[in-house]
Amino acid sequence: MYNYSISINMEKINIADKLSQFSDYFNPRIAGELNGQQVKLVKFKGEFVWHHHDNEDELFYVVKGSFDMHLQHKVITVNAGEFIIMPRGVEHKPVAKEEVEIMLFEPATTLNTGNIKNEMTVEKLKKI
Amino acid sequence: MYNYSISINMEKINIADKLSQFSDYFNPRIAGELNGQQVKLVKFKGEFVWHHHDNEDELFYVVKGSFDMHLQHKVITVNAGEFIIMPRGVEHKPVAKEEVEIMLFEPATTLNTGNIKNEMTVEKLKKI
Repeated sequence: MYNYSISINMEKINIADKLSQFSDYFNPRIAGELNGQQVKLVKFKGEFVWHHHDNEDELFYVVKGSFDMHLQHKVITVNAGEFIIMPRGVEHKPVAKEEVEIMLFEPATTLNTGNIKNEMTVEKLKKI
Repeated sequence: MYNYSISINMEKINIADKLSQFSDYFNPRIAGELNGQQVKLVKFKGEFVWHHHDNEDELFYVVKGSFDMHLQHKVITVNAGEFIIMPRGVEHKPVAKEEVEIMLFEPATTLNTGNIKNEMTVEKLKKI
């Protein structure tokens, strides 16, 4: 399915170290891979695009800061030390008034903008 | 495959709140579920059992404290804010000198003691 010797790192990963290596927003980096899923690190600031994922559930864990997850009928503020799971098919839009640092856990097939393609879409993620 | 309306919680999860609800060691609770994977919260103190998982990779993210991941040829100390991925098939033994709080990401099929069954095996995990 995929090559474990390449894709899985037996060293520990320090999240703050990895997050200090980039400063752009809405551009996730791959920090780990297991069971066909990826651990991604990303910074948000500002407003993302409304979208959903047809085949992937997504977990957003806030490392530092906070952001608002906009859903069709409510807004959930997710703070440091909290996570939220977006089930497949659910329309959502993350909005961060200030910079927020996030760890994502989702299938390797997940496109950041889901069913939408625009200037915020990142097709090929960098590893970090 | 599984029932999203039951298994996926659209509310956010506060990890510290969940961790404050139990105090026993090596007894993981299920805090979230997505893509056939589970997010588990667990406290370690003391020495676990040497084991491996035939079909599951496991991620250990340290929320608070630190622990030593013993491998066959080395020991990796994993501190708060760090994670380590144990690929399937790799023998490992977590040891925590002091209490450590951990978030696990792994397939729903994962048994805590892997290929070993003993008094530390937890067959049916509680949700939290």
